[in-house]
Amino acid sequence: MYGLIERLFPICRSITGNGVRQTLAILGEYMDGLNMYEVPTGENCFDWTIPNEWNISDAFIEDNSGQRIVDFKRNNLHVLNYSVPVEGAFTLDELKPHLYTLPNQPDAIPYKTSYYKERWGFCMSHNQFQTLKNKKYRVKIDSKLTPGSLTYADKLLHGDEETEVLISTYVCHPSMANNELSGPALAVGLYNFLAKRKNRYTYRFIFVPETIGAIAYLSKNLEEMKKKTIAGFQLTCVGDNRGYSYIPSRTGKTIADKIAKHILDNRVQKYNRYTFLDRGSDERQYCAPGVDLPVVSMPRTKYGSFPEYHTSLDNLDLVSAEGLQGALDVHKDCICLLEENKTYQVTTLGEPQLGKRNLRDSLGASTTLPDKDKIITNLLAYCDGKTDLIELGEILGKCALDFIPYILELQSHNLLRVAP
Amino acid sequence: MYGLIERLFPICRSITGNGVRQTLAILGEYMDGLNMYEVPTGENCFDWTIPNEWNISDAFIEDNSGQRIVDFKRNNLHVLNYSVPVEGAFTLDELKPHLYTLPNQPDAIPYKTSYYKERWGFCMSHNQFQTLKNKKYRVKIDSKLTPGSLTYADKLLHGDEETEVLISTYVCHPSMANNELSGPALAVGLYNFLAKRKNRYTYRFIFVPETIGAIAYLSKNLEEMKKKTIAGFQLTCVGDNRGYSYIPSRTGKTIADKIAKHILDNRVQKYNRYTFLDRGSDERQYCAPGVDLPVVSMPRTKYGSFPEYHTSLDNLDLVSAEGLQGALDVHKDCICLLEENKTYQVTTLGEPQLGKRNLRDSLGASTTLPDKDKIITNLLAYCDGKTDLIELGEILGKCALDFIPYILELQSHNLLRVAP
Amino acid sequence: MYGLIERLFPICRSITGNGVRQTLAILGEYMDGLNMYEVPTGENCFDWTIPNEWNISDAFIEDNSGQRIVDFKRNNLHVLNYSVPVEGAFTLDELKPHLYTLPNQPDAIPYKTSYYKERWGFCMSHNQFQTLKNKKYRVKIDSKLTPGSLTYADKLLHGDEETEVLISTYVCHPSMANNELSGPALAVGLYNFLAKRKNRYTYRFIFVPETIGAIAYLSKNLEEMKKKTIAGFQLTCVGDNRGYSYIPSRTGKTIADKIAKHILDNRVQKYNRYTFLDRGSDERQYCAPGVDLPVVSMPRTKYGSFPEYHTSLDNLDLVSAEGLQGALDVHKDCICLLEENKTYQVTTLGEPQLGKRNLRDSLGASTTLPDKDKIITNLLAYCDGKTDLIELGEILGKCALDFIPYILELQSHNLLRVAP
Repeated sequence: MYGLIERLFPICRSITGNGVRQTLAILGEYMDGLNMYEVPTGENCFDWTIPNEWNISDAFIEDNSGQRIVDFKRNNLHVLNYSVPVEGAFTLDELKPHLYTLPNQPDAIPYKTSYYKERWGFCMSHNQFQTLKNKKYRVKIDSKLTPGSLTYADKLLHGDEETEVLISTYVCHPSMANNELSGPALAVGLYNFLAKRKNRYTYRFIFVPETIGAIAYLSKNLEEMKKKTIAGFQLTCVGDNRGYSYIPSRTGKTIADKIAKHILDNRVQKYNRYTFLDRGSDERQYCAPGVDLPVVSMPRTKYGSFPEYHTSLDNLDLVSAEGLQGALDVHKDCICLLEENKTYQVTTLGEPQLGKRNLRDSLGASTTLPDKDKIITNLLAYCDGKTDLIELGEILGKCALDFIPYILELQSHNLLRVAP
Repeated sequence: MYGLIERLFPICRSITGNGVRQTLAILGEYMDGLNMYEVPTGENCFDWTIPNEWNISDAFIEDNSGQRIVDFKRNNLHVLNYSVPVEGAFTLDELKPHLYTLPNQPDAIPYKTSYYKERWGFCMSHNQFQTLKNKKYRVKIDSKLTPGSLTYADKLLHGDEETEVLISTYVCHPSMANNELSGPALAVGLYNFLAKRKNRYTYRFIFVPETIGAIAYLSKNLEEMKKKTIAGFQLTCVGDNRGYSYIPSRTGKTIADKIAKHILDNRVQKYNRYTFLDRGSDERQYCAPGVDLPVVSMPRTKYGSFPEYHTSLDNLDLVSAEGLQGALDVHKDCICLLEENKTYQVTTLGEPQLGKRNLRDSLGASTTLPDKDKIITNLLAYCDGKTDLIELGEILGKCALDFIPYILELQSHNLLRVAP
Repeated sequence: MYGLIERLFPICRSITGNGVRQTLAILGEYMDGLNMYEVPTGENCFDWTIPNEWNISDAFIEDNSGQRIVDFKRNNLHVLNYSVPVEGAFTLDELKPHLYTLPNQPDAIPYKTSYYKERWGFCMSHNQFQTLKNKKYRVKIDSKLTPGSLTYADKLLHGDEETEVLISTYVCHPSMANNELSGPALAVGLYNFLAKRKNRYTYRFIFVPETIGAIAYLSKNLEEMKKKTIAGFQLTCVGDNRGYSYIPSRTGKTIADKIAKHILDNRVQKYNRYTFLDRGSDERQYCAPGVDLPVVSMPRTKYGSFPEYHTSLDNLDLVSAEGLQGALDVHKDCICLLEENKTYQVTTLGEPQLGKRNLRDSLGASTTLPDKDKIITNLLAYCDGKTDLIELGEILGKCALDFIPYILELQSHNLLRVAP
């Protein structure tokens, strides 16, 4: 996953344009049959209208010695994303309204956008900004803002059932690693895991420009998704190796919420539990009133709560193979639990006789039971046809995933069955 | 409001008689069209029977020098309320069973009543009681206890809807300020506020002698009130400037409860939260089983929990303009929230595009949003057609009243509508 | 009750055999018309099959001097319960796999069973075990394991209603006092209490071998019990005088749970509150999925949590008359509350006039009410036809049993009636 991030990092993405297409083409190398779609400029998607497409080939600020002091080719964050073209000579005072810096993080280049209002501008470190002299600078942004289309991609991995699990992430930020590329990398990691398995559910992978892309996607697929989706995971900021986080759905009561909390409680234990008030990525669309998809998010460190967020410091140093692996493990556990989550029912009235099936030591009257025996008797005591696997985990105070071998064993003895 | 209390203070009220009539006549000067009603002695109201009417013109204890040592005209608390007439000379020992004092508050004259058993008696400070000599005293109570009627008043202030809000208070205590007159004064304050507005709801103001008056009123109006009342506020002890209090309805789950808690939590923060076990005023009748009106009470310091309660120390010094204003503000906020409390629904699927309506800064990718933007996006995220304004306040952790300008703005952009 | 325990203590009980029959015959002397039942070997009861019947007359280990160093007649725990017959001479090494001790409790003889696998063995103190020499021992177990039957008993004490309360305990342990005989002794104590009263409910007393006996009983009576049982109490470990405990039903939400918690909260206050995960006696069967009887357990110190459990130290010194009396009191209180638990409704609208019924002091305007008056007014305020007696206790923060005299008084004034 880390290698994929390295490969995608240099590309200048935005909410439209060739950067997105290039990114999706690379992702398509890892995911067989990834479908790309184009939504033309001017098309209405719910309350939004697809804007002109933006492409850029070069941008710089030159001093009077012809030296590029700010160069898009060195770091694509230097240009205000969606800048209109500009070329000319400007005094420092004329330039200043077009320059963006972070006085509190003087080493960092900020990430700024102006998708829906025509502007041009440059982002630079505050340290560099303070070295600028009061003289003329030659400025050029070689961009095009013209009718075109917005691009997104999806891939359905079919399972035994039509019921779907949504895996969504975004592809619209230029060179940033945790808050952009960790998401697609994890999506590919999950795809690799799932493509090798026989799955109960169908998995819908979505790669969209954030906000408008999710809205465009929903405007074309909402009816089907509402009918089919049992749970969804928005992948964002899943690459650093600091904490773990949970952002619930709007109601906080979907199966996705139950699963996420159960896995994080049992596998991670200490994590940041946010509320939907802290939302910020495409769960904003998926959980909007009337959309109401059961989508949660489990970042490592949440967007907006790490200092590198939306700056040039969110680079390849911030994400790590360990960080990505931690996120992959948590999401795989959630998916496994979702796949296995069923409601079981004991087949006997009263406790079954475990001894005759060699499921219990034949020497009686012990004062304590071995752990295995405790789990087995507890499963038999609580599998009442109303309590699902996750709830069994909550009641027994253990990770529900760990019950699966015991449930298989009890099923093989015809002592448990899936409730009708 | 304080001036009205000063004016009403000297009148000797009881559960029947001219003191009540005089009080209601003065209140009528402030409330256009206040209706007075008489319920004759002997009439049955639910489980109760209207007693004889009591009126009193004078009462005193004279020592043998002809000096009035206890004089009803100096303080009407001196006479046991509802005393039967008496005239004669008594030794101190004969007098003692008719004297009421407070040994633990030796400066205070207690307030005592004997509405339903014929008695006569005097209340005096324990200090004065201890100066009494073992000699003869001339005693006179010039009262009448004869068939007449119980008097109460109401006033309906009509709004757009027939649905009613109950504002109830009592008029039966003699010269006491906080535990009597603060209630009618606040009722007049709320009337002044509401009479100038165009209201959604109809407001039913009730002035009754406590307990039997409320029961008499209910016996004649319960059916209509049960059909129409959405919320009610019992006004009592609302004139001191110490804490704030909340006494819930019996269930604690009415809209009145939700409103009162929300306003007190957000506007006052620290207040005494009682249970219905601590009830004591006419909420006892309004929330009785089978009556079940949604009535709460928000005293400043609750009856029974301040030392001056039911003594001559509950005088004009105990109440203040500031104390009354605090209670008025809290009750006005409750009424405003009740009037504005609706369930809203967003009109778009997914987030609306705020930028094109100038509801959001067009420069993107900020790491934090201004407060106004946060409230707007949160309202849009939670207005799902099921969550009312109060619940929005609870979810967002802010006073719901503060959302009203934003809701109006969003409605003007057709982004929110009232749910059907 | 303590005397009954002394009488039953020496008998060697098991899950079948004459020890059980002897025990039930003695219990029958205390309970008129106790019915004994036999279920033949080989009969299937739910998932279980009744095993061969076990009887034993003697068992010992003799050293080479002919001295019985381990003698069943001194303590019937010495023999592994359900041992097959054996006779012969064994070296210590040959003997060792058949010897059971408790290295951590070197003075105690452990209690061990092998009901469902053919074994023979002896239990002894670890101290004695360490004195054994490496020589030949003569061993004899004079037992029979042959087709026969499993024995249990019940007794229905009929009340006004067919609705039943289950009182269940077990009779299958050899000489142990707290974890065996305290249960039957308490059952007899409760029977004596109930047989002298006129009861609302019918009481079903059950004496069964633990586990298989309860399963056998349920297999024959479940349909009727499910239809009729309102609450049940499993009696176990109710004879020591240390703490009190509560083991809920599986759901923790039956009337039995409400009653047990209310009585323990109010009468005992400090007690060990377990969950159904801590179950261990026949509540395992009664609360199994599909059985779902509303059964709780209120031991003094719970099985498995006292050091003498399942050893020879659980003897007549561990139980006491005081310990049994404490358990009897708690169970009697639960039964009384269950019998009296009804939902009451006030007969008036608004508060009734208590003064005219001499239920309230006629001198008015006190600042506090006497306790009796508070309870009366609170009962009248909360008896809304939906709140039962237990819930009244929870709301008022007092033991609901203490309300009964007031409820009778209010009923005698026609102020309360049982809700239809």
